[in-house]
Amino acid sequence: MKNKVERDIPDDILKQSDSQIFRGVDYGQPTIQRVAPKVKATTGQNKILDSVDEVVTQTVRDGMTISFHHHFREGDYVFNKIMRSIIDHGYKNLTLAPSSLTNVMNDIVVEAIQKGVVTDITSSGMRGSLGDAVSHGILKNPVIFRSHGNRARAIESGDIKIDVAFLGVPNTDDMGNANGMNGVAAFGSLGYALIDAQYAHTLVLITDNIKPYPNTPASIKQTQVDYIVQVDEVGNPDKIGSGATRFTKDPKELKIAKTVNDVIVNSEYFKNGFSFQTGSGGAALAVTRFLRTAMIEKNIKAAFALGGITKPTVDLLNEGLVAKVMDVQDFDKGAAESMKDNPYQQEIDASWYADPANKGAMVDKLDVAILSALEIDTKFNVNVMSGSDGIIRGAIGGHQDAAMAKLTIISAPLVRGRIATIVPEVTTVITPGDSIDVIVTEVGIAINPKRQDLMAQLKNVPGLPLYTIEALQEKAAKIVGTPKPLQFTDRVVAVAEYRDGTLIDVIKQVK
Amino acid sequence: MKNKVERDIPDDILKQSDSQIFRGVDYGQPTIQRVAPKVKATTGQNKILDSVDEVVTQTVRDGMTISFHHHFREGDYVFNKIMRSIIDHGYKNLTLAPSSLTNVMNDIVVEAIQKGVVTDITSSGMRGSLGDAVSHGILKNPVIFRSHGNRARAIESGDIKIDVAFLGVPNTDDMGNANGMNGVAAFGSLGYALIDAQYAHTLVLITDNIKPYPNTPASIKQTQVDYIVQVDEVGNPDKIGSGATRFTKDPKELKIAKTVNDVIVNSEYFKNGFSFQTGSGGAALAVTRFLRTAMIEKNIKAAFALGGITKPTVDLLNEGLVAKVMDVQDFDKGAAESMKDNPYQQEIDASWYADPANKGAMVDKLDVAILSALEIDTKFNVNVMSGSDGIIRGAIGGHQDAAMAKLTIISAPLVRGRIATIVPEVTTVITPGDSIDVIVTEVGIAINPKRQDLMAQLKNVPGLPLYTIEALQEKAAKIVGTPKPLQFTDRVVAVAEYRDGTLIDVIKQVK
Repeated sequence: MKNKVERDIPDDILKQSDSQIFRGVDYGQPTIQRVAPKVKATTGQNKILDSVDEVVTQTVRDGMTISFHHHFREGDYVFNKIMRSIIDHGYKNLTLAPSSLTNVMNDIVVEAIQKGVVTDITSSGMRGSLGDAVSHGILKNPVIFRSHGNRARAIESGDIKIDVAFLGVPNTDDMGNANGMNGVAAFGSLGYALIDAQYAHTLVLITDNIKPYPNTPASIKQTQVDYIVQVDEVGNPDKIGSGATRFTKDPKELKIAKTVNDVIVNSEYFKNGFSFQTGSGGAALAVTRFLRTAMIEKNIKAAFALGGITKPTVDLLNEGLVAKVMDVQDFDKGAAESMKDNPYQQEIDASWYADPANKGAMVDKLDVAILSALEIDTKFNVNVMSGSDGIIRGAIGGHQDAAMAKLTIISAPLVRGRIATIVPEVTTVITPGDSIDVIVTEVGIAINPKRQDLMAQLKNVPGLPLYTIEALQEKAAKIVGTPKPLQFTDRVVAVAEYRDGTLIDVIKQVK
Repeated sequence: MKNKVERDIPDDILKQSDSQIFRGVDYGQPTIQRVAPKVKATTGQNKILDSVDEVVTQTVRDGMTISFHHHFREGDYVFNKIMRSIIDHGYKNLTLAPSSLTNVMNDIVVEAIQKGVVTDITSSGMRGSLGDAVSHGILKNPVIFRSHGNRARAIESGDIKIDVAFLGVPNTDDMGNANGMNGVAAFGSLGYALIDAQYAHTLVLITDNIKPYPNTPASIKQTQVDYIVQVDEVGNPDKIGSGATRFTKDPKELKIAKTVNDVIVNSEYFKNGFSFQTGSGGAALAVTRFLRTAMIEKNIKAAFALGGITKPTVDLLNEGLVAKVMDVQDFDKGAAESMKDNPYQQEIDASWYADPANKGAMVDKLDVAILSALEIDTKFNVNVMSGSDGIIRGAIGGHQDAAMAKLTIISAPLVRGRIATIVPEVTTVITPGDSIDVIVTEVGIAINPKRQDLMAQLKNVPGLPLYTIEALQEKAAKIVGTPKPLQFTDRVVAVAEYRDGTLIDVIKQVK
């Protein structure tokens, strides 16, 4: 059955997943009965267990859904410790439901799949050896990819039922009052994990830092925690933050960043009280820097910055150029450390950040979002999940969510090496073109034709070459030629949900 | 059927309330399926309605359960505004489920009952004209009195299903991000109301102060809020705080306070890292002052102070004598204002404070609690609900909850005017004697015989006359004589639950 973005969703997949096809970006105003956990009263019980093995055997059973967060990113030591124990104890048929999977988790997940420990996965994304193995059909059932906001929605509505959440924290007391802000392995906001803490039937904290009771501020509360286990180290502080803390010196990236800035400042949204999400990476930091200069020049102040937060964004807060910073995650040590002390930096959970099925998410109020892409097609559909070889190597993250912004800008080079970024048809549709407004490349920009208003605002800006998306695609094709079509089998190895839980695309096994 | 404290709970009441009789203070470790609200997704919808009438007619229907908080105490303007509109619109058969009812609410509730608007009430307590009317049988069904912790339990488990919560806040933005800390009518912690915010199907904020988006810190989050209505004033700042901000000069109260302090400092619990809850009122403030001196003299520091917080407790925090202050409510402006700025003052919700059916409440960790009483009997049972005339004139508050402390001290005069405080049998059992350790009066103390350990610690303390509870009761009887037994009809006008939801006593209609 073909959905709104012309992708064919096989009937057996629709049936198996009990889902509907994607019908458009407008969610409407449905009323949803939330679910709630079973809670075991544990008045006065000692929550601290002696070892990872003890907590695993106490909590995990065959067939369960277990979850993790990815706030430690590439510095995560928790996931491997727990999965090692789970594999060694021979559990079977588990569903893995982390907020995302980072590269340090790849090998052990592949092992768990090979041994029948894990048969189902839902995640924001995957890369490396795991993405490769899944693309080659290693997993029993299709992976379900969900955005950060959609994961919150799925947990709240019962689409994901977490039996046991294993959450690593850089501090807790002996009852489970914990935050992400203090300790050697601090990472700042616990945004994604707060949903697990609220909805998991059983919650296990893994920490290397037990503090005197009561530990505050308590982002995770003792009322939510069943067990605590202490380990030597929960994470590698050097790898928790993203590498990029300085803006890029790559001339192409700088050109794109400057053009993104030109689009923003010449749009109607660049005015006092506007809001933005920039993301991480060298180019995003460069955009933040250009934006800072423009805000000072035009005496414009932002109401809030949203999303994964970086140090340069916090600098804007400290300069008074941004009134509030809303952190669902922090991408570097500077942002994490500032959140601890700055009352104008608010930790927000994934539902508040981006869930379409609540009483209002922050992305609904977002003016400007700058997002990346692996591929963009001439319908403005964006792929952030599969490579040009058809292999899974990405993550939805907050892409679909932040694209709800009034001005959603995709910042991407026209080509990457011998691979076109702007293509006739993306390999996998993750974010529908209907929610994308402007594509910025190093040669110029393309505006979604449904945004004639933006067209009017931007068409006469000096130094802002305006193309049709088809023209940009042709430019790219001229540079790199037309690749051979990808070869897939008929077997679906992963499905991508839109943020409302409908199916926007499927990913098939590579030949 | 007689319960553990020998109170006869009529069979029809048990059946009607689908409850069990009180069987003891030990809650065990049951697993409870929590409930969850129905949530209407409201992406992008304007939440601000024009008037109280508009929001009432938009949300209230006959037979619903509606809730309020009592954080504005005697300065509350919200309850009357909403109830006026509800009465004037002629709604029927509502259940009123506020966190408590203060005196400013009495007359309008009586009117609502008389007009058939309200047929059921659950509350922490009631006083004045309302308590009098209920005691005389005005309400259709028995009131259910619940402690603050039990109310959280009842909401979480579905015993109370809130259709619409009307929560007054001293600030919010246009999406519903709100806290109790800023604004003219600031009251500090929103502790009791946070449960309503999480579980009500529909949440209405009433405010006199709409702030720029996003308003932080957000104790109540936009994800929880359906409607917002702006009024001129939500509360009278002069009446929000309790009157008592100075310690008493009454010699009898001072004597009791000093004796309470002697009990604490000579017990095993007075050591580094201890914790306490003192409550409000002049005598409690005096205890705090004596305790301060003792802590300085013996170089002892407390890990936390809990409960309704007062300025003198915050002073201990600022002096470094207390490491953390955990606020479920703030009794005066000093405590409320400090919470805004002091990172060591943590807002906690009623579940975290005292719910027995979660994964650990703060009262489970409490060393010392000082509580008051209207009556105490020779089995150490405490009445804080009905007067010696049988009329309802009190509130459970956190009494049953804080009595979980390792050392629970009841501070009370032997007699009040011509009325004995220590009696052969209390009019209404609210807190079972099994959870009470020491009674302190102006003539001396009585220790619960089950606490032989405390007896050993306190029996040789100079100036701490030790009596049996029977001896204290006889002393009281000698002063005031033996009153005539109260006359009640057979009709039950209210039931008192223990904190676990079982029935500990009933209150009958007065003759």
